[in-house]
Amino acid sequence: MIKLYNFLPPGNCYKVRLLLTQLDIPFEKIEVNILKGESRTLEFLAKNPNGRVPVLKTQSGQYLAESNAIIFYFSEGTQFLPSDSFLRAQVLQWLFFEQYSHEPFIATSRFWITYLGKAEEYTEALEQKRAPGYAALAVMEKHLQQHSFFVGEQYSIADICLFAYTHVAHEGNFDLTGFPAIQAWIKRVEAQPLQISIDR
Amino acid sequence: MIKLYNFLPPGNCYKVRLLLTQLDIPFEKIEVNILKGESRTLEFLAKNPNGRVPVLKTQSGQYLAESNAIIFYFSEGTQFLPSDSFLRAQVLQWLFFEQYSHEPFIATSRFWITYLGKAEEYTEALEQKRAPGYAALAVMEKHLQQHSFFVGEQYSIADICLFAYTHVAHEGNFDLTGFPAIQAWIKRVEAQPLQISIDR
Repeated sequence: MIKLYNFLPPGNCYKVRLLLTQLDIPFEKIEVNILKGESRTLEFLAKNPNGRVPVLKTQSGQYLAESNAIIFYFSEGTQFLPSDSFLRAQVLQWLFFEQYSHEPFIATSRFWITYLGKAEEYTEALEQKRAPGYAALAVMEKHLQQHSFFVGEQYSIADICLFAYTHVAHEGNFDLTGFPAIQAWIKRVEAQPLQISIDR
Repeated sequence: MIKLYNFLPPGNCYKVRLLLTQLDIPFEKIEVNILKGESRTLEFLAKNPNGRVPVLKTQSGQYLAESNAIIFYFSEGTQFLPSDSFLRAQVLQWLFFEQYSHEPFIATSRFWITYLGKAEEYTEALEQKRAPGYAALAVMEKHLQQHSFFVGEQYSIADICLFAYTHVAHEGNFDLTGFPAIQAWIKRVEAQPLQISIDR
């Protein structure tokens, strides 16, 4: 059986659990508590020298890191990734947008506030995250004003990827009140099969 | 002919110019001077709401943003992307590593120092970029101690992607002296056909 080295809170790990569950692919979860430094041990670094979760171990014993690389890998040939080459490129566009323009601001704020409980200590750093975080949400809102899902008008890993940290953005003190199209899209994603059954 | 909205200095634009040239795909370059705010005009935001270069316009008039999505799109079915599904996933792993763990530190330092000329003004921010930037280089060094290229022992877009900002890391005050495997890999990448003819 494949193994997923993961931690409950990060959206990056949630993405993989969600896709594998929706694809009905059985997997063993191995908890790596990053708050206790478990992703920086020599044993873990042998799996991913970059010291981050999630990491996937295939049945043949190979390791794969980076949440978006993992979900792309499993979605190929399924309903969660378009077969058209340009649509696939658009999916990747959103996956890279998420890692560069969304996650470093919205996910990091959530981590500091909700998981480290250090909102006061990180006041200045949190303040710097607000403008780029809201800019990312504005890009999403604009797109979703004209589209039901991010690519090809159907649910794909682009939605899984962006949903992961957006639906918990409030835990990083990002307010979605001014983003009605995002709110409606969150409801559409939550209405997908099995979405409700994922650990988080 | 396809159009590439790009700017000379950023490695993210260089990646696309390099791959298209090595693939012998003709393209029209349209300069977008980000130092003059040209990527934030209403006209440009209609092409990429995220306000970043590069952006590609296909012959059918569709736009695609995110450098790594663009190079993945053009490399599919060519020698620059493995056909094996797991090797492709490993390529994507390095592409996401580059955007999350490498570019925000090494490329941003280079931009502040060499293009904005504001090393003094950004002293503290630059200091914060050093540890994660060197950590990314250490991950690359460790991998290249055992491999000639990043994936499958052959030159691919994973190498193009990581080469873009690594070979100019010194412009961000990152010293590659302690990274002999990276230095040797840079020479291997520079020995690829047409590498020398790209604008930079």
